[in-house]
Amino acid sequence: MLKKTLLAASLATLSLSSASAFAIENVDLLIKNGQILTMDREKTIFDNGLIAIRDNKIVAVTDGSDINEYKSVKTIDADGDIVMPGLINTHTHASMTVFRSLADDVPDRLHRYIFPLEKKLVSREMVRIGAQLGNVEMVKGGVTTYADMYYFEDEVAKTVDQIGMRAILGETIIQFPVASAKTPEDGIKYAEKLIHEYKDHPRITMAFAPHGPYTNSTETLQTIAKLSMKYDVPVMMHLAESDREREVIAKRSGGLSPVKYMESIGALNENLVAAHVIDANEEDIAILKKYDVGIAHNMSANIKSAKGVSPALQMFNDGLRIGLGTDGPMSGNTLSTIDEFNQVAKVHKLVNKDRAAMPPKNVIEMATIGAARALHMEDKVGSLEVGKLADVIVIDTKAPNMVPVYNPYSALVYSAYATNVKHTIVDGKVIMENRNVLTVNEDSIRKEALQFADKVRQTVIESGEIVQ
Amino acid sequence: MLKKTLLAASLATLSLSSASAFAIENVDLLIKNGQILTMDREKTIFDNGLIAIRDNKIVAVTDGSDINEYKSVKTIDADGDIVMPGLINTHTHASMTVFRSLADDVPDRLHRYIFPLEKKLVSREMVRIGAQLGNVEMVKGGVTTYADMYYFEDEVAKTVDQIGMRAILGETIIQFPVASAKTPEDGIKYAEKLIHEYKDHPRITMAFAPHGPYTNSTETLQTIAKLSMKYDVPVMMHLAESDREREVIAKRSGGLSPVKYMESIGALNENLVAAHVIDANEEDIAILKKYDVGIAHNMSANIKSAKGVSPALQMFNDGLRIGLGTDGPMSGNTLSTIDEFNQVAKVHKLVNKDRAAMPPKNVIEMATIGAARALHMEDKVGSLEVGKLADVIVIDTKAPNMVPVYNPYSALVYSAYATNVKHTIVDGKVIMENRNVLTVNEDSIRKEALQFADKVRQTVIESGEIVQ
Ligand SMILES: [Zn+2]
Ligand SMILES: [Zn+2]
Repeated sequence: MLKKTLLAASLATLSLSSASAFAIENVDLLIKNGQILTMDREKTIFDNGLIAIRDNKIVAVTDGSDINEYKSVKTIDADGDIVMPGLINTHTHASMTVFRSLADDVPDRLHRYIFPLEKKLVSREMVRIGAQLGNVEMVKGGVTTYADMYYFEDEVAKTVDQIGMRAILGETIIQFPVASAKTPEDGIKYAEKLIHEYKDHPRITMAFAPHGPYTNSTETLQTIAKLSMKYDVPVMMHLAESDREREVIAKRSGGLSPVKYMESIGALNENLVAAHVIDANEEDIAILKKYDVGIAHNMSANIKSAKGVSPALQMFNDGLRIGLGTDGPMSGNTLSTIDEFNQVAKVHKLVNKDRAAMPPKNVIEMATIGAARALHMEDKVGSLEVGKLADVIVIDTKAPNMVPVYNPYSALVYSAYATNVKHTIVDGKVIMENRNVLTVNEDSIRKEALQFADKVRQTVIESGEIVQ
Repeated sequence: MLKKTLLAASLATLSLSSASAFAIENVDLLIKNGQILTMDREKTIFDNGLIAIRDNKIVAVTDGSDINEYKSVKTIDADGDIVMPGLINTHTHASMTVFRSLADDVPDRLHRYIFPLEKKLVSREMVRIGAQLGNVEMVKGGVTTYADMYYFEDEVAKTVDQIGMRAILGETIIQFPVASAKTPEDGIKYAEKLIHEYKDHPRITMAFAPHGPYTNSTETLQTIAKLSMKYDVPVMMHLAESDREREVIAKRSGGLSPVKYMESIGALNENLVAAHVIDANEEDIAILKKYDVGIAHNMSANIKSAKGVSPALQMFNDGLRIGLGTDGPMSGNTLSTIDEFNQVAKVHKLVNKDRAAMPPKNVIEMATIGAARALHMEDKVGSLEVGKLADVIVIDTKAPNMVPVYNPYSALVYSAYATNVKHTIVDGKVIMENRNVLTVNEDSIRKEALQFADKVRQTVIESGEIVQ
């Protein structure tokens, strides 16, 4: 009899939730009194709305008038704060946090400093320590999903699993020997192994990450493209980023642009996520659109290195799959895409000589559902809608820089700091509450990173190799 | 006898402080274990240094080896954090915080929206409420001195006095009627009155603030220039900011640039602080240098409005008096110059196509001693040196975005958030400690601002006047 009653109640919940006296819906987490930016197709905003979460999914997003119909294990009172989809960082190298602030602004830095530095210092330990720190920084900055390219991505995966984030982790494949692989072939095998191992993980997807077209052979790029279609996994790659790349590829291909070269070798497809895409003209953009390639737009890194401004405004307006990325902490130098917001909004205005270009709403789109589209995850994350995975953040609007909020998109883009993120929820679990990360020990992670930094100092600074 | 002993001890303190057994120096505040960026001429850094403060002055800045020679009423253990001069915001309109996030990105916004909005809503109350909020934001963002241009600056002064900051407050003079003055002549009288009233205030200097050359008559500008020399007070003005300004001034002057026009009418002198200076060629820059004009560089506001990039790199390299400013919260939109750091560093690299341009050290110079020079206050503030006023901030280096610090200038410019400021000391007094503002009630200030924002909503949004 008891069972039958429960079943009846359960059916009532499903079918009559707003109509009958039965209609109390049991949920795990309720976020109430939030200014909810849903980032759904209509960009619906609820001024005093609620979100109900059961298990790892969103089961209701409403104007809050039905609040008495929910019974929740835990309730967060947003108290007027902004509630929005968790941010998605479409391109980074989280482990490089341990190198942050090292030899910034050096000409030809990647080839002169970063590759040699990595040759000396990349190890399983370094990857783990750096990723732990990067994860903490991202969670505290409202990032719930990130796409990473580095070495020993199984080490990154363990840290992602522990903190409770969502990630696409691409094992880097490059034409010279690296710590995790002696050859590109070994790198591909390494990636394949991880792809198999993690294929059922609920939050982690393993991927291929060829460093770039000019740092890999045509054959390697073709092999990866084929394998990515075979396994249906993402390929993350730097593309159309630098003059050096253009020169090498032009020489190799008889004058093609990096994008056209990739098309010519059959390496463009819907699994590709291309980072940067600075050096792309209208034709290149049309090709990227045709193959449904995702784009990671890394404004901060691109202008810091004086490489130029990606035609991201046009790519956004043309409907390409484009989202914000921070690039790595030696490039960006921080890992929350909140730090990209105002640079993206302003620099596109500057270079297009149009103060109405790239309005805040579009920036927030590129940080959420646009970024989800770039990673081909828009069915799962990127907006607050019923049925989606419950990746949600709450932004403090009581901090003086966030007062007042006439327009939440403006406030977020022009005023918010990553530190204004108050709560971070991933997969239905609160992993940061009131700025305290609940799933890992932030202090010991910082201390481990500082210890490793001492090793870096000894290896490359005290030896005089890097002049700070 | 007691008196004589005290005198002897005092003499010993002065003359023998590091040599004898007498040599315990009594101070009011000691900051120890800091990575001290002095920003003195040699850019001395002490890795584990100390600063001793007596009354409102710095009495010692050392490598910390003499720590046992001080007895202090209060000691702050910086625990390895960065200790640096308080930031100086060379140009803002603090009271406009109550309008923040309103109608951003509208073409011709100043004339179409801001002036009409101000006509309706500027009042003594608005100025006070907005300045209170702006002050809290600045103190929490490490700003210890700011230069303000607005109306009813006596209201701003009261808030500055209360929170304990340092400020130059310029009463705005403009050719149309405003809340605090019906005519420019009345505006000048208003300013003169405040200049007299505040002439002995230890932390507040009143000033003239003609809005711009194109929004005032030649006669008004000449009168202000003369009075500023007579009273030896600053003149703050927007200069060489917009196409409209260039057109109006060219018409008025037979084709002169705004800077040359100002020279031609005798309105350039060492009391002038010119904000923006975007539209200035080499000749204009040489003229500004010749007259020892201070420059407020407001990158964030200038690129957001797509007005262009000031030749600040050249002005800095040419040795002009130049410092960072945020502009007002409808323009910038935040009030800590920390938010300018990475935009300044990166956008100059971008437009000069040189990743080595505008290195972090120069940005920090423009935020501290450079800004002091721009306001002609470099004898008093802007660096941590014995004899200077004790305006000091401590930056948390334990926040994940600040780990590790191989280069403190890089870490500050590329990674720091305004919220990483941990303690703010002005004139020897701790006015923020562990992020708590001690001198005012932050909560009630925010609530007053939010109440005023409701009035703004009713007046201009609900009436349909401003479409958000
Ligand atoms: Zn990258
Ligand atoms: Zn201004």
